[in-house]
Amino acid sequence: MSSPAMSSPASPSPPRTGPYERTHRTTPTRYRDRVSYDRELVHAILDDGFLCHLGFVRDGAPVVLPTLYGRVGERLYVHGSTGSAPLRAAGRAGEPGMPVCLTVTHVDGLVLARSAFNHSVNYRCVVVHGTARPVTDPEELSTALDALVDQAVPGRAADSRPASAKERAATAVLRVDLDEVSAKVRAGGTDDDPEDLALPYWSGVVPVTAVRGTPVPADDLVPGIPVPGYLTGR
Amino acid sequence: MSSPAMSSPASPSPPRTGPYERTHRTTPTRYRDRVSYDRELVHAILDDGFLCHLGFVRDGAPVVLPTLYGRVGERLYVHGSTGSAPLRAAGRAGEPGMPVCLTVTHVDGLVLARSAFNHSVNYRCVVVHGTARPVTDPEELSTALDALVDQAVPGRAADSRPASAKERAATAVLRVDLDEVSAKVRAGGTDDDPEDLALPYWSGVVPVTAVRGTPVPADDLVPGIPVPGYLTGR
Repeated sequence: MSSPAMSSPASPSPPRTGPYERTHRTTPTRYRDRVSYDRELVHAILDDGFLCHLGFVRDGAPVVLPTLYGRVGERLYVHGSTGSAPLRAAGRAGEPGMPVCLTVTHVDGLVLARSAFNHSVNYRCVVVHGTARPVTDPEELSTALDALVDQAVPGRAADSRPASAKERAATAVLRVDLDEVSAKVRAGGTDDDPEDLALPYWSGVVPVTAVRGTPVPADDLVPGIPVPGYLTGR
Repeated sequence: MSSPAMSSPASPSPPRTGPYERTHRTTPTRYRDRVSYDRELVHAILDDGFLCHLGFVRDGAPVVLPTLYGRVGERLYVHGSTGSAPLRAAGRAGEPGMPVCLTVTHVDGLVLARSAFNHSVNYRCVVVHGTARPVTDPEELSTALDALVDQAVPGRAADSRPASAKERAATAVLRVDLDEVSAKVRAGGTDDDPEDLALPYWSGVVPVTAVRGTPVPADDLVPGIPVPGYLTGR
């Protein structure tokens, strides 16, 4: 069952340009004006986050679990040790891979229209349909582990103790290629029906942002170690 | 095919107490100390959010889409008009319902250990396994539509124009009962291996919070309408 094609070398995918190809699965039936296949937009939305919701099928039923990801070019890496037996199975060398749907969503605002019906949310979302395959190549595994740390805190991977051989063996990492991808974005203000504009209800947008607070050092931090620049933005 | 049992009346589910029953699907294989079936904890996590990731199976493959939800007692309501044909099909009266997995996740912090391996995220998550069924009872539909608006902004449903008959007919709402449910929580500080404590790497937690900014009124807002108290917290 084992195949060397299961995990290609860590060299990046061939550079691709232009939009992602639209497929049946990435064509929405509603709000078609909100969908985009723009590669840079997809990358930007993915790079603005670090947590995805990973869906797979177990015993015919859907399962959706939150997990961390890291993007390297046209590949996403996710932790396969999410407590799910099928995911861990997909992570074993020799398995054919597992169909997954990986979704990343940022909420940017609450859109309060005069009418309940026209209430909405400003958001940016990327949906990836693909196959999760185990990362077995040692060099690619290193790349993936760094990406998983750096996705949330760029620069952190180089400023932490690298994984030992034992830790690497305990970490199942899956790869999902960015082939069948779409973005969906809702931005801007309220979109009320003309006949609602004079109604006596407040209307507008409440911005929502994921804010990072002041880093809290560990109680047992070695004295004298400053908060790193990649956390303070300096 | 139509069955009166498809949508029971809008009266709330019989009150239930005590933890949710653990099932095979809600028993994790890793981090079992992080899982909980506590009903109040599940409710609190759900009530702290308004966006879920809804998973279902289409042509044998998983699909995960972000959508809004509202909780009413032991029921969740979600918009079925998410652009997905299967979801809309599940929303038609007479359909037997659709297996779904509905997941809500809040990120509370980035946990930076000395070792890359022990990096983690503080989070609160609820995973609901169940069946999405259409809401057809008119009274329950009203309750559901209000809940969908009030979940994000409590008090807003009563301060907006209610849906017209035409709008109600255009809104597919699905119900998912809270039967097979678990919460998962990671909180607290770093969890480094003892032999890593003396390493010269900063270690600690970066808090993450979803912050709501100052409400931005619509350009065409009727002059003199103040920002409502349910948005200012006053």
